[in-house]
Amino acid sequence: MYIPTYDDVLIAHKRIKPYIHETPVLTSSFLNNLTGAELFFKCENLQKAAAFKVRGACNAVFGLTDEQAKLGVATHSSGNHALSLSYAAGQRGIDVTVVMPSTAPQAKKDAVIGYGGVIVECEPSTSSREAVFSEVVAKSGADFVHPYNDPRVIAGQATCSKELMDQVCGLDIVIAPIGGGGMISGTCLTLSTIAPHIQIYAAEPVNADDAARSFKVGYIIADDAPNTVADGLKVPLKELTWHFVRNHVTDILTATEDEIINAMKLVWLRMKLVIEPSSAVSLATIIKNPEIFKGKRVGIIITGGNVDLDKLPWMSQ
Amino acid sequence: MYIPTYDDVLIAHKRIKPYIHETPVLTSSFLNNLTGAELFFKCENLQKAAAFKVRGACNAVFGLTDEQAKLGVATHSSGNHALSLSYAAGQRGIDVTVVMPSTAPQAKKDAVIGYGGVIVECEPSTSSREAVFSEVVAKSGADFVHPYNDPRVIAGQATCSKELMDQVCGLDIVIAPIGGGGMISGTCLTLSTIAPHIQIYAAEPVNADDAARSFKVGYIIADDAPNTVADGLKVPLKELTWHFVRNHVTDILTATEDEIINAMKLVWLRMKLVIEPSSAVSLATIIKNPEIFKGKRVGIIITGGNVDLDKLPWMSQ
Repeated sequence: MYIPTYDDVLIAHKRIKPYIHETPVLTSSFLNNLTGAELFFKCENLQKAAAFKVRGACNAVFGLTDEQAKLGVATHSSGNHALSLSYAAGQRGIDVTVVMPSTAPQAKKDAVIGYGGVIVECEPSTSSREAVFSEVVAKSGADFVHPYNDPRVIAGQATCSKELMDQVCGLDIVIAPIGGGGMISGTCLTLSTIAPHIQIYAAEPVNADDAARSFKVGYIIADDAPNTVADGLKVPLKELTWHFVRNHVTDILTATEDEIINAMKLVWLRMKLVIEPSSAVSLATIIKNPEIFKGKRVGIIITGGNVDLDKLPWMSQ
Repeated sequence: MYIPTYDDVLIAHKRIKPYIHETPVLTSSFLNNLTGAELFFKCENLQKAAAFKVRGACNAVFGLTDEQAKLGVATHSSGNHALSLSYAAGQRGIDVTVVMPSTAPQAKKDAVIGYGGVIVECEPSTSSREAVFSEVVAKSGADFVHPYNDPRVIAGQATCSKELMDQVCGLDIVIAPIGGGGMISGTCLTLSTIAPHIQIYAAEPVNADDAARSFKVGYIIADDAPNTVADGLKVPLKELTWHFVRNHVTDILTATEDEIINAMKLVWLRMKLVIEPSSAVSLATIIKNPEIFKGKRVGIIITGGNVDLDKLPWMSQ
């Protein structure tokens, strides 16, 4: 298992800069008053493809040799990694195949196709997904870019907090949501190297709290099919992300579905930003745990903004 | 009638800087591809109180002498000017009274109260509004800050395109929605002074096209109660804003309700920004009139982001 270093992050940042936005950091005096903290929102919802995942995807795609690139890239994902890898491959002009369950929302399929990706459908089960994916890779020889358990991807995600460090000084805490742990691992990689005094918190839905339970017991617990509105956070930790979480995260906090939806709506209402439920989990845990955050300068990674605008979660509450 | 000058704009900008955001300019390659233009969105939805109106309101409030300020300020508005004046008065710690029709949405009333404003209700008619407002001003001696037909307000709004000129170079066109004409007048004031080669377009709903008709015939036409989803654009031009529109605007373009709602949803979907319908009229007219905008660098003033998140216009389509 290759563990990426900060040198990999520096190389990644130089490599991906032409293809990503340096996303703005926004603030809200309303939310500062509400939480008693000074909050700095790093807006990856305003990133290309509306997700931080573009960073890792671009680092993987543009790190390939021309020989490798000819064979294309492939992944399995029905979320932001699928869009992001399709965007990155499109920028390089290479093939990309995404294995997606046939049950994935049409909007997600359309978005992948819009970026030039090819979708191969599988049944909505792990066994079908793995079988179909193996076949795709065997046939094309495409490079497999895992959504998070990949050193290239983690080094790419790490450029987000590298930018944040240049944009905001004197942070006490950085918090990001945790699913598979790609963003948190990148955050750990950057901060443990260039700002080791900053505490790193992860935020997770109560309904998909396998990382929080893993953190407590000291080994990876992987739930099979958790159900949460924060659909980007359903996947389990893997060995590479577990390495970073175990060594560098201060704590993993959790929030209920209602707390997540309320925090999401607050950001839409007060900051005028379209963020997806996964992005709201951090703020939900900050509101819930004032004793940790009060009086602190807190960086919050807003991870993405891909939501179905015709079906907002507070409307079905 | 005092016509504000660019010197007033420079003074206004210095005066209001501590109380406003320098809002970011965002871009979207999707919307560039769609329109064939290079679009630069000046995001006043990310402004304090989520509206450019804070600029004019702060300039009026902070321009008062201490003697005047003691008597407070007052206005009639059920929209962003009400919020913005309440915000500005709160920042200076002075009284603000807003005359609002009893039928105004509770959310708007709550927002004014949240900023420390006092609401006096009137019947939803011009005669009642004027009678109640006269009474308020006679009793308190408060300074009347008109939503747009006020040189202090126009000089304040003019700081928006002043910032835009520092943020983006080489613009060919700037476009903003037109209701009473405060933002357009401010834009005319700034650009006619420091960048007279830039064309200024205004955008208006077909359903409330009194400014477009005024522009054609050469005198002010004021409709009584137009009905449009772009609720910030229902008010008519007044003599001061007419002065700027008549002298400096290239043309006023119009868009239908469906075109406005579609453009609004596109911005939410592609730029991840919560914008109100009034803000979307400019993009709607750009999509509708490619022959004007194709190949041009276009600044678009996104005027505000105050919408009812429980009742989005595309959901009732």
